[in-house]
Amino acid sequence: MENLKLAIIYYSSTGTNYNLSREAETAAKNLGVENIRFRRFEETVPENVIKQNEDWYEHYKATKDIETATVNDLNWADAIIFSFPTRYGDAPSQVKSLIDSTGGLWQNGKLVNKVVSGMTSAGNPHGGQEGTLLSLYKTMMHWGAIVAAPGYADPIIFEVGGNPYGFSVVGGTDLTGKHKQAISFQVKRTLEIAEKINK
Amino acid sequence: MENLKLAIIYYSSTGTNYNLSREAETAAKNLGVENIRFRRFEETVPENVIKQNEDWYEHYKATKDIETATVNDLNWADAIIFSFPTRYGDAPSQVKSLIDSTGGLWQNGKLVNKVVSGMTSAGNPHGGQEGTLLSLYKTMMHWGAIVAAPGYADPIIFEVGGNPYGFSVVGGTDLTGKHKQAISFQVKRTLEIAEKINK
Amino acid sequence: MENLKLAIIYYSSTGTNYNLSREAETAAKNLGVENIRFRRFEETVPENVIKQNEDWYEHYKATKDIETATVNDLNWADAIIFSFPTRYGDAPSQVKSLIDSTGGLWQNGKLVNKVVSGMTSAGNPHGGQEGTLLSLYKTMMHWGAIVAAPGYADPIIFEVGGNPYGFSVVGGTDLTGKHKQAISFQVKRTLEIAEKINK
Amino acid sequence: MENLKLAIIYYSSTGTNYNLSREAETAAKNLGVENIRFRRFEETVPENVIKQNEDWYEHYKATKDIETATVNDLNWADAIIFSFPTRYGDAPSQVKSLIDSTGGLWQNGKLVNKVVSGMTSAGNPHGGQEGTLLSLYKTMMHWGAIVAAPGYADPIIFEVGGNPYGFSVVGGTDLTGKHKQAISFQVKRTLEIAEKINK
Repeated sequence: MENLKLAIIYYSSTGTNYNLSREAETAAKNLGVENIRFRRFEETVPENVIKQNEDWYEHYKATKDIETATVNDLNWADAIIFSFPTRYGDAPSQVKSLIDSTGGLWQNGKLVNKVVSGMTSAGNPHGGQEGTLLSLYKTMMHWGAIVAAPGYADPIIFEVGGNPYGFSVVGGTDLTGKHKQAISFQVKRTLEIAEKINK
Repeated sequence: MENLKLAIIYYSSTGTNYNLSREAETAAKNLGVENIRFRRFEETVPENVIKQNEDWYEHYKATKDIETATVNDLNWADAIIFSFPTRYGDAPSQVKSLIDSTGGLWQNGKLVNKVVSGMTSAGNPHGGQEGTLLSLYKTMMHWGAIVAAPGYADPIIFEVGGNPYGFSVVGGTDLTGKHKQAISFQVKRTLEIAEKINK
Repeated sequence: MENLKLAIIYYSSTGTNYNLSREAETAAKNLGVENIRFRRFEETVPENVIKQNEDWYEHYKATKDIETATVNDLNWADAIIFSFPTRYGDAPSQVKSLIDSTGGLWQNGKLVNKVVSGMTSAGNPHGGQEGTLLSLYKTMMHWGAIVAAPGYADPIIFEVGGNPYGFSVVGGTDLTGKHKQAISFQVKRTLEIAEKINK
Repeated sequence: MENLKLAIIYYSSTGTNYNLSREAETAAKNLGVENIRFRRFEETVPENVIKQNEDWYEHYKATKDIETATVNDLNWADAIIFSFPTRYGDAPSQVKSLIDSTGGLWQNGKLVNKVVSGMTSAGNPHGGQEGTLLSLYKTMMHWGAIVAAPGYADPIIFEVGGNPYGFSVVGGTDLTGKHKQAISFQVKRTLEIAEKINK
């Protein structure tokens, strides 16, 4: 597993998916993964709009120095963990901006067999968490990527109440030990599948 | 609203969606709807299989006398409220059996502009509640039906934590006052849209 | 129908969805609709990137003067027809940018009962045409909007080979008479539903 | 690849998905796979209903002796290729009947890491082909199965005009050489992924 190249790419406006992603990073490090690119989806909303929302602006400033994801990161990775909040049951435009720019990689088959997995959040307990991940995975199938959804492949998924498509919370949730276990399991499963695929 | 014809059609193995449906029926009656057909999707699993699960068998016997839904009920209705549990993010086969037999109605355009709305349950809090309703509505679009999803069109949807596609619970949940309000809102919204469509 | 407010909002890089949208506009005018806002989703890709693709740059320049859609247009409209190409089975980021900025309208219930319908295109005959519209409609349910999918509510839908979720073509297709009839039907159906909803 | 256990499970009323499945079987044999279970989803519609449709009854009689799929076949297989027609954008009830009976396998984690892929047909060129496969794969994620969608991982997918989620045709289509190549590619891809997963 040490030799796997893992990209963790997140979008977060006020920190929830940033936290999920950092937790995923910790889990990957604990599994001995050395090649990790921790990246944020580039913000596309103008700063003056962000400033109108204090929490957003705080988080924006605090994470400004994190490298933004590029198509090169997608190309580089064996496994990719995405984390972003729902926008009405679908990915945010910031996420779509990068995805829309992968035409070159896609046409050359460079995204085939990437092993991907997603995490998400919504403002409500049932606010698009499932729909958002299902849309992500639909896109991944166009890439020829291999979806590493957690399913109920470990008892922890039942313990955190699902979600079989990927870990999800309500925005603003403080992660519990169980949550962290569920994220850790999803990361492990993603890496194990990636390891098999890349042999 | 009194003249609207409302079909409430449910499938339930151990009672959750039966309860949701009865609650919907109560809500409809409170709104003055007089033409209600309360129906269950016919059970297609053999009795000897059902008997192996005590709760299922109990509920099966207790509700045996409820009329089963037919294509005539679908044809008759102006508005339809469906309620059924998830089966891996999709409708149970009992539900599909009836839906698959609507070819005649469909070819003759008899399902166009039916106003439909769905409720569901799953074993886990995030166990396919969204996915199940999204699949139902996909099918409804093939019918030319009009989907009356609650969205967040009333504050009660936020209060019960979503779901914008339709009311949903964990299987076995005792309905709270808030839950009942959310069901009541969904029924009202469905009927209001049906009333407009049928004018 | 004359008093309905119709927004037609499209994104197009090389012209296909622009053509679909103009056809929809013609259909609406033929039905006597006077209040039409024909708008494009604002381009978010930098001009120097667009320039690398000659067809895209040509279309970009040719349509630069078309007003871009704003949240005000969404607020204003009774009915909205969206048209945009797939991006891996989902909406382009340009579309998501506007949708992501509707939080204010959404929280105030201003998008409830908007009657919406979608058209799309893909590079392949089966290249995400269905998936893209299903994702759009999922988002619309979060809005509390009412989806006016064509279904098979008219024989023309069979004649053009579907799609029941909304008109779709392969990118670059020259619209035939049948295609135009299918678009015209979808526009008419959307407006008829909007008329009923707004009475 | 010779040691992989492959289940090909289809439902067909008038022969289209039977043909797709036989083609998949041929492809697998050509790849040296020796352990193949070719199975049909059990028919759940009463014979007197089937008789009303001559083509259906003919095919029904002609294929009656093909073994029906059981949960044991699912348990046994390393890789599963499903093929069935759409029913309004979703799987037929015959398919769901088997899927709904997998609770025992599911709870014991026996479906985790099954490698699955789907093919489908619809009455119209855009008649739910995408939607049907997307629903299947949603269910597969609940199982913890690994979806082997073809994506555009081979030029043949472009040549047959998609579909990236799985091979699809209009019902009644005579398979061309290109179609057979696309099926063959999908089978090969599924087996290759299964081989890696099972090492």
